[in-house]
Amino acid sequence: MNSSQSTLLLIVLAASLGALAFAVWLARWVLGRDRGTREMQVISNAIQQGAEAFLARQYKTITALALVVAVLIWVGYSQFRQTTTGDPVGDPGLLALYVTGSFLLGALSSGIAGFMGMWISIRANIRTAAAATTSLNAALQAALRGGAVSGFFTVALSLLGVAGLFAVLQAFQPADLTADEWARRIPFLIVGYGFGASFVALFAQLGGGIYTKAADVGADLVGKVEAGIPEDDPRNPAVIADLVGDNVGDCAGRGADLFESTAAENIGAMILGVLLYPYFGIGGILFPLVIGAFGLLASIVGVVVVRTREDADPMAALNRGFYVVSALVALALYVTTRWLLNPANAPDAWWHYFICGLIGLATAFAFLLITQYYTEYRYRPVLGIAEASQTGPATNIIAGLAVGMESTVLPVITISIAIIASYMLGQSSGLVNEAGEPVGGLFGTAVATTGMLGTAGYILAMDVFGPITDNAGGVVEMSGQSDRVRATTDRLDAVGNTTKALTKGYAIGSAALAAFLLFSAYLDEVRNYTGTELTVNLAKPHVFVAGLLGAMLVFWFTSLAMTAVRKAAQSVITEVRRQFREKPGIMQGTDQPDYARCVDIVTIGALRAMVLPGLLVVASPIVVGLVFKQFGIGAEAVAGFLMIATITGIITAVFLNNGGGAWDNAKKYIETGAYGGKRSDAHKAAVVGDTVGDPFKDTAGPSLHVLIKLLATITLVLAPMFI
Amino acid sequence: MNSSQSTLLLIVLAASLGALAFAVWLARWVLGRDRGTREMQVISNAIQQGAEAFLARQYKTITALALVVAVLIWVGYSQFRQTTTGDPVGDPGLLALYVTGSFLLGALSSGIAGFMGMWISIRANIRTAAAATTSLNAALQAALRGGAVSGFFTVALSLLGVAGLFAVLQAFQPADLTADEWARRIPFLIVGYGFGASFVALFAQLGGGIYTKAADVGADLVGKVEAGIPEDDPRNPAVIADLVGDNVGDCAGRGADLFESTAAENIGAMILGVLLYPYFGIGGILFPLVIGAFGLLASIVGVVVVRTREDADPMAALNRGFYVVSALVALALYVTTRWLLNPANAPDAWWHYFICGLIGLATAFAFLLITQYYTEYRYRPVLGIAEASQTGPATNIIAGLAVGMESTVLPVITISIAIIASYMLGQSSGLVNEAGEPVGGLFGTAVATTGMLGTAGYILAMDVFGPITDNAGGVVEMSGQSDRVRATTDRLDAVGNTTKALTKGYAIGSAALAAFLLFSAYLDEVRNYTGTELTVNLAKPHVFVAGLLGAMLVFWFTSLAMTAVRKAAQSVITEVRRQFREKPGIMQGTDQPDYARCVDIVTIGALRAMVLPGLLVVASPIVVGLVFKQFGIGAEAVAGFLMIATITGIITAVFLNNGGGAWDNAKKYIETGAYGGKRSDAHKAAVVGDTVGDPFKDTAGPSLHVLIKLLATITLVLAPMFI
Repeated sequence: MNSSQSTLLLIVLAASLGALAFAVWLARWVLGRDRGTREMQVISNAIQQGAEAFLARQYKTITALALVVAVLIWVGYSQFRQTTTGDPVGDPGLLALYVTGSFLLGALSSGIAGFMGMWISIRANIRTAAAATTSLNAALQAALRGGAVSGFFTVALSLLGVAGLFAVLQAFQPADLTADEWARRIPFLIVGYGFGASFVALFAQLGGGIYTKAADVGADLVGKVEAGIPEDDPRNPAVIADLVGDNVGDCAGRGADLFESTAAENIGAMILGVLLYPYFGIGGILFPLVIGAFGLLASIVGVVVVRTREDADPMAALNRGFYVVSALVALALYVTTRWLLNPANAPDAWWHYFICGLIGLATAFAFLLITQYYTEYRYRPVLGIAEASQTGPATNIIAGLAVGMESTVLPVITISIAIIASYMLGQSSGLVNEAGEPVGGLFGTAVATTGMLGTAGYILAMDVFGPITDNAGGVVEMSGQSDRVRATTDRLDAVGNTTKALTKGYAIGSAALAAFLLFSAYLDEVRNYTGTELTVNLAKPHVFVAGLLGAMLVFWFTSLAMTAVRKAAQSVITEVRRQFREKPGIMQGTDQPDYARCVDIVTIGALRAMVLPGLLVVASPIVVGLVFKQFGIGAEAVAGFLMIATITGIITAVFLNNGGGAWDNAKKYIETGAYGGKRSDAHKAAVVGDTVGDPFKDTAGPSLHVLIKLLATITLVLAPMFI
Repeated sequence: MNSSQSTLLLIVLAASLGALAFAVWLARWVLGRDRGTREMQVISNAIQQGAEAFLARQYKTITALALVVAVLIWVGYSQFRQTTTGDPVGDPGLLALYVTGSFLLGALSSGIAGFMGMWISIRANIRTAAAATTSLNAALQAALRGGAVSGFFTVALSLLGVAGLFAVLQAFQPADLTADEWARRIPFLIVGYGFGASFVALFAQLGGGIYTKAADVGADLVGKVEAGIPEDDPRNPAVIADLVGDNVGDCAGRGADLFESTAAENIGAMILGVLLYPYFGIGGILFPLVIGAFGLLASIVGVVVVRTREDADPMAALNRGFYVVSALVALALYVTTRWLLNPANAPDAWWHYFICGLIGLATAFAFLLITQYYTEYRYRPVLGIAEASQTGPATNIIAGLAVGMESTVLPVITISIAIIASYMLGQSSGLVNEAGEPVGGLFGTAVATTGMLGTAGYILAMDVFGPITDNAGGVVEMSGQSDRVRATTDRLDAVGNTTKALTKGYAIGSAALAAFLLFSAYLDEVRNYTGTELTVNLAKPHVFVAGLLGAMLVFWFTSLAMTAVRKAAQSVITEVRRQFREKPGIMQGTDQPDYARCVDIVTIGALRAMVLPGLLVVASPIVVGLVFKQFGIGAEAVAGFLMIATITGIITAVFLNNGGGAWDNAKKYIETGAYGGKRSDAHKAAVVGDTVGDPFKDTAGPSLHVLIKLLATITLVLAPMFI
């Protein structure tokens, strides 16, 4: 290990450990808050039990699946592959060990990140509820810091995993390689880490997403629509399951999602950094980790500075925090590009890449603005859906679908500009190969992605803030607090809905940008193994067909996810109807509903339903790769499959997320009194749209984020099998 | 002109003219049927007036747009293009003239085909209604033969246009070329014909589709849902507009659609035939036209043999006709491949291509079966939607969306197998170039497409059968006929709904197969102009971004089409409410509703709404081509844009068509008495799904078929601009 390398790794490891320590401090701070009244605790305990029981069972299933996949990877690498001269290590058994080991470590870390998100949020919810009895600021801080525990833990763990693996593998440097030569091979050995993380994330997001929306839809249809009782009413037997869902879906799911985003992006960017080793040395390979480390520190500052006056809009306080983080990340980009991406023979390179990083930050901003425009009722799209609700549910649905589809336009244009601009900045950075051709283009897109993900810690804190405030509202409602307290949690809940929508926009934007980076890493990896450049020629029938299959996978997966929600919701409805029928006392408030049974039913339904779509995603690229390998075109067909699945996935996810968000807020807008307000026909129509939007925005949409990255990481890991 | 060429052209021209003559005979036969009672005639006349008024205004708009485009093509070709040595004619002015002229001719022919479809169907509807008073067989024959007039006219005109242009251009053979050399260039000169046809088809299908569903949705929401009167009730002021819609949407629209399918496919296949000139001579270039000619004759036989017993299922009779046509087309493929695709140095070629043709026929069958499975209530998907309707409209919608998405899986697999199998059969046909590489693969996919489209005439007859029977039912209902007559038209109407759904499956299947052929023609054309092979490398950022934009276009267009329907329907609702309010006598039957005003409002709304999405589709590939040309990657970026738009378009169209069809039949299933039958809550929920499905299956879905082919033909025509 040379000194520059050790310095950089030290920075990354120190920052990650520091952030973890800070997360622990924050967690202790949150746990030290008041736990409220006994009534609150009863409810909170029920949520806690349900969430923990679900996660325990979910993790059991995922562990079994992950072990099977690990064995398959190991067998595939060690037994069935022809070794090539391009292999990063010559011994196939050793190569299999590295890839499989990093897969398992990635899976484990992703699981821990998801668990932590859920662990803190089921504890922060009651403290937020209790804090709401004293002040808005106290509640805001409790919820945001609860979210920050999850955010910092997740991002720090991701950095720690990649940097730690890197550091550990250095110790195994083969005798015939120099330290630097070995360092250039390590990224190819740890690609399994990203796959492991995505693998767990997919099931976590999918299972959690099905759980949360099955409970939500079921509780709403049978409670609000049939029995005519309000949301979060304690008489509804499915209400605890609904509150559990927020934790296991939004917290655990999104935690695992962003964990693997950063892990996969870092590894992908490192692989592209290897290509530029002649110019940047190890600094180029470790650059994404260093930016990640600085971004984490910036996020800490952001969370600490957030505070609000009692009469102010809490969203403004959260936005201020985000501006602070973005400014600090920009500063970090400036310093780091000057330091690490500044070779003597290309004096303009650093500022080209600095601008690439700023493009990434700007892309994040643009996605937040576009998401706001399409999902808030201050703007035309949501108002149009509300207006269409006057002529009934059918026009509400048509309008919502149209808004969702239209909302793909600006994000696609944004991503297009970001990719092309950062690529061209990279190309013109002055880095040229021996033949005089520019070679820095793809690294430009990698730097843009790095810049965009620099704020991930803070974004994730804002995201987990959502379910915490949502739960706090439920606890307050069910424990019968005063109207003043409810008003406080309602305000925070509204902000939480906004942050949840925004972070989904951020997540898909960064996934889209990262996707291009991950393809490039795939192509790079194939070149490393085969020694020849891979083109992905859509004009070949086999590649075109593979692309067609990729696009179809996205639709199929979405269909399965939505059907899973519908069926699990159906079983909730059947159960609640049974309880109402058999215990008429529930509706009079004289008899206690059986919450646990509903929790149980959703748990079983969600876990059963997540397996098929999950395995479909994992198996598809493998089947495509192995089948088309028979036609002598495996690696290229898989690339076509991956790219078109990604394109379709990005667009479908944006459609689902924004469509769902828009329906939700169209209903909220009518509830403010428009078109007859609550209980009007327009409101009834809007409730239909909102219900349809639930699996859109909280099950299928977010699962597609993970799907995109899982396809990319699985192909990265299995590329050597398809060649 | 050498003798083989003139023989082949003669066959094609004779068959087309024969089919036209037969269509005229059929039309006279239909017009000779009884025109029913005076009450029937009043209604039929009102429909006729509305349809003609719409088409007149629509064609005015389309003519203006087409002239603008013609000028742009002419200016672009003659003024702004750099001529290359690969140009099919040296003089840019002459080249511009050929391309522009064939564009205008294609547009004109497509317009005539659409007009004829509408013209006969508004005359056949009343004769079918009158025939229903005597027997089922008489009504079936009147409707099918009415449909056949449109079907034969359309397909014959398409063949006549392409073959006629070919024959005419031969007269302009330049002095420095032999007849055969010149014949090999002609396909590149008449690419404009396909573009002209698609251009008109897009607006015809889009405008007609918006019209028909705006009237339908508007009439249903305000009539069935608000006023509680049955469908086709004469008290509903929008009822005539609804009946007009069937003619202008389904007849005129689908006629133009299949016209341009056959035209574009023929030209594309001819371009691929040019490549194989060394092996097949002119026979390979004219092969698709010859198969088209035989297919037309086969379709005539099919229509003539259809007859039904009074107690039999009319669908069985239609199916028998289809089997006859398919068997005859298979025979024609056998004869023609042996004759034209049988070079001495590749003795196995003919039967390889014969099997390719059979694959095309089998693909048509597979699409019909898959469409049946997903849209008929004998099978699981529709039954699932009906079951989900019990818990309200939200679960009905979720179930329908999921079914639509799932229904993309089998069609994609079918198309994938068809493309790869026919490609590989072509590759192994024994045709090799000087370097010994196989070159017959792409022509294999062309032959498969030709085989699939061989039955187009009969399919189109079955398709137009749908709106004729639908209208006949409306005429019978509104003129107050006996229950027995209604029962007869109801049976035919049910069959018509099935044939409409099936032909949509056929149309998208053939579009998917043709799409691959049209890309290949595009790549071939670019090679002809530039002299170098074009690869479409998705790994390049610009190509990837172009693909992203292509997928986005499909979503954007769908959004605009659905919004157009919603807004136009909204204006119908407003108008009908006004009439009910101002003339209370309408509901008592003492006052006459103002049908014409509703017709007028939908006409204006639909025409205004079709322009923006239509121009978006035309402008997008041009903008992409010209912008990316600045980065030096115009032709390749356009290819990426085209291919991914096509993939997304195929899948989205299948989703929309089948989803809409499934919702429709889930409602019909409940109306048979399931889950409480008519007026139950489940039925109300199913009506919501059916209404959402209307713009899916009759506006956005079919318009996407045309969009796919328009993108392909526009890029074919403008390829020389992007190089």
